Amino acid sequence: MLKQTIGNIKPLDQTAMNAARDRQNNLTKPVGSLGRLEEISIQLAGIFRDPMPKIKDKVIVIMAGDHGIAAAGVSAYPQEVTSQMVLNFLNEGAAINALAGHVEARILVVDMGVAFEFEPHPDLVSNKIALGTQNMLEGPAMTLEQAEAAVMAGLEVVTAEIEKGLDIVGTGDMGIGNTTTSAAIAAVLTGEPPEKIAGRGTGVDDEGFARKISAIETAINVNKPDPKAGLDILAKVGGFEIGGLTGVILGAAAHNKAVMLDGFISTAAAMIAVSIAPEVKSYLISAHRSQEFGHQLMLDWLGLDPLVDLNFRLGEGTGAALGISIAEAACKVLSEMTTFAEAGVSEKEE
Amino acid sequence: MLKQTIGNIKPLDQTAMNAARDRQNNLTKPVGSLGRLEEISIQLAGIFRDPMPKIKDKVIVIMAGDHGIAAAGVSAYPQEVTSQMVLNFLNEGAAINALAGHVEARILVVDMGVAFEFEPHPDLVSNKIALGTQNMLEGPAMTLEQAEAAVMAGLEVVTAEIEKGLDIVGTGDMGIGNTTTSAAIAAVLTGEPPEKIAGRGTGVDDEGFARKISAIETAINVNKPDPKAGLDILAKVGGFEIGGLTGVILGAAAHNKAVMLDGFISTAAAMIAVSIAPEVKSYLISAHRSQEFGHQLMLDWLGLDPLVDLNFRLGEGTGAALGISIAEAACKVLSEMTTFAEAGVSEKEE
Repeated sequence: MLKQTIGNIKPLDQTAMNAARDRQNNLTKPVGSLGRLEEISIQLAGIFRDPMPKIKDKVIVIMAGDHGIAAAGVSAYPQEVTSQMVLNFLNEGAAINALAGHVEARILVVDMGVAFEFEPHPDLVSNKIALGTQNMLEGPAMTLEQAEAAVMAGLEVVTAEIEKGLDIVGTGDMGIGNTTTSAAIAAVLTGEPPEKIAGRGTGVDDEGFARKISAIETAINVNKPDPKAGLDILAKVGGFEIGGLTGVILGAAAHNKAVMLDGFISTAAAMIAVSIAPEVKSYLISAHRSQEFGHQLMLDWLGLDPLVDLNFRLGEGTGAALGISIAEAACKVLSEMTTFAEAGVSEKEE
Repeated sequence: MLKQTIGNIKPLDQTAMNAARDRQNNLTKPVGSLGRLEEISIQLAGIFRDPMPKIKDKVIVIMAGDHGIAAAGVSAYPQEVTSQMVLNFLNEGAAINALAGHVEARILVVDMGVAFEFEPHPDLVSNKIALGTQNMLEGPAMTLEQAEAAVMAGLEVVTAEIEKGLDIVGTGDMGIGNTTTSAAIAAVLTGEPPEKIAGRGTGVDDEGFARKISAIETAINVNKPDPKAGLDILAKVGGFEIGGLTGVILGAAAHNKAVMLDGFISTAAAMIAVSIAPEVKSYLISAHRSQEFGHQLMLDWLGLDPLVDLNFRLGEGTGAALGISIAEAACKVLSEMTTFAEAGVSEKEE
């Protein structure tokens, strides 16, 4: 199924993109004067294979998982915050609940491997691979089979949502320790040293930050992930929620749906997805530039320019929610505005 | 009435701001992790005098006016586009219609001095000062009495909207030639030469751009506006719609309402407002950084940092619409999220 999914990721539809571009150039505004909104509308035309793309059903998928590396003291918060925040999402008390509500996006919370046994809940999808990953200082975070299972679970989650109508998926994450694993993934793929990638996460102090850099170096030295093999990197220094997001990204692209990437962790998942299936890049929109130190290097590696920079460093899909609203605005500009001819407005003097 | 309005612009309410900041610091996220959203929510608490500010009624006020300087060939579009676009706003075919609709803001279109006699329309407020300003190459764009009348009209427009419920006003503009007048205002107030302020506007070519720079220099030399006197600058090198927006900004601040500034022209109006009443600055939020060349210098003069940069250069309030949505999101985060204690989430380890 993974191979089939990868095979289904096609280049964007140039005919639809050209039609959207032509229309943008005839709407009652100077050509290009809505900048990124125009570009996004054209990209969405190519993704949806529709010269007049529309975004109706918006879904934020929040993947949660725990990390063995949390035991190394790399985070400012204790591990139980992962499960507590999952419950906070379900009780609608978190930042993503407020922001998804604001942009009228649905939220789906997926337990990919939290170190806690949840009671069944109608809004919680359980794909628990294990009660957290292993400590990557001592060996791979997970087996290759677990990495594949995580990606497959993400594929299945997004495919089910697409059947319900999903047009665009915002990626969200929760997992204490996951800025450490994401930085490790980015260090392997970009070849940059950990100190150029890792940041303070949720706000770790100087000593914790030194432990974090050292943990990433050790994890890479111990496990020697292959920079050419996305699943190998995911297994050795990744996380279950990151694997799940990789599957969500691949599955959305394979079904001609758009992906609105949140920040640091989501971008690490996108890097794994692109290393598995390079064509997936055309389906990605980066919502925001994270405050997390190395995010820009990861965006550069992906060739993405984020829509906004509001100094976020939270995850959960909070940046993606705002990005989805901007993408929807882009579609509305394209479909609702009149052309110069329709409106009887004089065109530019040559 | 203008003096009284200026006297009514009070410093922000520090008690409400402190309460909002305390609450932000106890919500279930790392302190500061929603960056600009947190700052905006605290500013809005201070503006509204409410520790839990809410944005319900959002209005984009589009002020339209024509400019005598258009005769000097400073724009890529003919002057009749001003009136044609006013009709396009009323017929809901313009970019601002799509974007205001997206963020659920009302639109109010005000004729401050378009060189065209409109038929009466229920959504068009007529405050026509004259059929366009005079050509500022030959003398003042308007008399001091007209400048005062334009500001007073803006005050009255926003006061009427506040009576209907307005919480936040987005500033919008339409007027062929108004990037030239706005650049002239900014050149006078910042003391920077016109070539460091003026840009291509709606897309003027090299020759037109040279004419534009030269026109600004000539207008300033001929009229010698007093950099210390906002109304004098407005009269000599401004425009009716810019004066109207100045009034909207002053009136909103005097009534403890928030102002979401659009781009280049709105920022010039804000500079006039701040030069008349410095305290108004605390009520301003800059929605976006315009592509128009000198906008950053104007923002620096005002001490404002725009929320987004999406390469817009359109006006109409298009950037303000997106900014209003972000401000509303900021309020929702503050009021809808739970605290660590309420949610039973563990706090940061010290």
